[in-house]
Amino acid sequence: MTTDHPSAPRDAPETAVGTSVNVLPTPCLVVDEDRMRANMDRAQAYADAQEVRLRPHAKTHKSPALAREQVARGAVGICVAKLGEAEVMADGGVHDVVMAHTPYGPDNARRAARLARRIAFVVGVDHRRQVEDLSAAAEAEGATVAVRVEVDTGAGRGGLAPADVPGFLSWARERPGLHLQGLYTYEGYTYDAPDTKALFERHREAQHRMVELAGRTTGAFTQPPVVSMGSTPSQTAGVPLLDGITEIRPGTSIFHDAAQAWLAGGLDRCAAFVVATVVSRTGDRAILDAGSKSLTTDARPAGVCATRGYGRIAGTDVVLTRLSEEHGVVEGPDAEALAVGDRVAIVPNHICPVVNLFDHLTLARNGRVTRVLPVASRGRTA
Amino acid sequence: MTTDHPSAPRDAPETAVGTSVNVLPTPCLVVDEDRMRANMDRAQAYADAQEVRLRPHAKTHKSPALAREQVARGAVGICVAKLGEAEVMADGGVHDVVMAHTPYGPDNARRAARLARRIAFVVGVDHRRQVEDLSAAAEAEGATVAVRVEVDTGAGRGGLAPADVPGFLSWARERPGLHLQGLYTYEGYTYDAPDTKALFERHREAQHRMVELAGRTTGAFTQPPVVSMGSTPSQTAGVPLLDGITEIRPGTSIFHDAAQAWLAGGLDRCAAFVVATVVSRTGDRAILDAGSKSLTTDARPAGVCATRGYGRIAGTDVVLTRLSEEHGVVEGPDAEALAVGDRVAIVPNHICPVVNLFDHLTLARNGRVTRVLPVASRGRTA
Repeated sequence: MTTDHPSAPRDAPETAVGTSVNVLPTPCLVVDEDRMRANMDRAQAYADAQEVRLRPHAKTHKSPALAREQVARGAVGICVAKLGEAEVMADGGVHDVVMAHTPYGPDNARRAARLARRIAFVVGVDHRRQVEDLSAAAEAEGATVAVRVEVDTGAGRGGLAPADVPGFLSWARERPGLHLQGLYTYEGYTYDAPDTKALFERHREAQHRMVELAGRTTGAFTQPPVVSMGSTPSQTAGVPLLDGITEIRPGTSIFHDAAQAWLAGGLDRCAAFVVATVVSRTGDRAILDAGSKSLTTDARPAGVCATRGYGRIAGTDVVLTRLSEEHGVVEGPDAEALAVGDRVAIVPNHICPVVNLFDHLTLARNGRVTRVLPVASRGRTA
Repeated sequence: MTTDHPSAPRDAPETAVGTSVNVLPTPCLVVDEDRMRANMDRAQAYADAQEVRLRPHAKTHKSPALAREQVARGAVGICVAKLGEAEVMADGGVHDVVMAHTPYGPDNARRAARLARRIAFVVGVDHRRQVEDLSAAAEAEGATVAVRVEVDTGAGRGGLAPADVPGFLSWARERPGLHLQGLYTYEGYTYDAPDTKALFERHREAQHRMVELAGRTTGAFTQPPVVSMGSTPSQTAGVPLLDGITEIRPGTSIFHDAAQAWLAGGLDRCAAFVVATVVSRTGDRAILDAGSKSLTTDARPAGVCATRGYGRIAGTDVVLTRLSEEHGVVEGPDAEALAVGDRVAIVPNHICPVVNLFDHLTLARNGRVTRVLPVASRGRTA
């Protein structure tokens, strides 16, 4: 038989519950169930203590099953980056989804309006064209589309400058078919803070801007506005939240990674690993079967979340110093301790795009597989 | 209905032939059929002129359909990096596959031996443990497994030092169930050559080492050995090949990318594009809906293949200066020419891991879809 399809369906995991993780073909993505649950609990406990709603970003795990578990533990719903992700989450039984990205165009606006008829769905906006499209689609579909306005508090990515927000809100509130729900920001620049003190200061400054802006624009909203902060480091570091912040959207903290975990004092919270095998030893090098197609080339050379290399072998200070697409290299004295056939668990620098490279998350407890979850919204970038 | 599966099967493309690429949801991966075919023809013409066999590396496209087209145009077979890729290619009607990577362990050796009973399959080796496993598996499965020995000509990745090869061959030839087919190297260090002259010199040096080594070890082989060189730049730059080199394994040249195309004098050969939409304009920035989950963070800051930024907008000198997972940013004066709603074709820095992020390759001619191919071995890293 000749077929262009893979020999087994992508979403039909063949790994039986109870299988030892030591016999899984490598590279594979293994999640420690207990650490993951503890991470979920920590995020919820932080949100509860700070009296804000938790809306985890599902870009990290891309699994409706894990999103449902986050909601079951107290999260108000989840956050996604793309319409395709939102659709997969809705199909997977997640009924409250915020898209912290700004879709453009009539076709995407129609998809958003249709989704808004199925679930509680909120879309980010930061430009009049997006709002006009969503308004027209809402009217055409007989839907009300809830929107949040993105505010640039310093990341220099999406979002309106704070000074432009009041005028934008006054204009947007007159568009039919829409419900203005609040304001959100992505304070990702905190990652680059030189130390924890600077991280706290930067985050506090971002919060101040958001609270001040929400106070000035309350009249634009029919209900008290959502005021939402993103990014994991503030949660991990335990930054206190000001009165007036109503929601947080950490993503990475469900798994953590080499960059984020240092804020918690070490790698003990890291729950997701790329398990790889030492396939060769040549010269002073150990060659692993995981490269950039398993680990990405994401690096974080500076700041409070700085990491070395391209992934760290769990339980050691050893990092992969070079990656090709399917080769990882450990060099010099670090390679001495690695023998051909050794299996190692690698903590990635940045777990979110790593999950996106795999078809499945293999969850395990005490070295035995507990369940295998499809990375259901993998590749749903559109 | 609640399901963890995506709402549509991954391998059931919904895009009709004839659809304008201007209406495809973005980001998407679009391949110019005519440029791709011209690139295939150039690779074959170079191999023919140099009197070597062409064995394209399928890691770039991960599509059995395109592999079959490469074979139909004269390629001797294809090359892959992983057993999972080899299996998908075999399922897809490709009957001559070399794995230019060294699998470890009894389970993988058994997979290799089974594949060797179905198709002409050759495995890379550079360590005795690999050879012992393959020999045992070949005997157990009643197969003969062909192997090639990897030689490190300077890449410092896998491969034996040339001085160690003769002894290794003498030992390996006595293992039952195996057929020693030849030698191969990966001369990826040519990418970092400071200029084209240095690229030529480095490549010629690598060829000399391989030819010399093959001449010294002919006695280990029952037939004239395959002597195989990898990497695209030498093909693109047209490096002359020495007598004694019998095969080349370029991968990227089917599509090219921002790094490789400069060796051909410009981006005119680039056949694969990430099509993205300008979803917002804020401050002096244009925000695109393609980030590192569509483009990767692969960069090439130095050498003859150097690129700036994280992808170049086709037909311009504009590059994306920053990426988040789902955002791409163009900053400063370059953003002036970009309006919300504009669709742009981005030439990635490194096309191979980009293809690996998408479920489908959408092929087009004159702006109309000609066919949609699954990226069938995407995620088959194990």
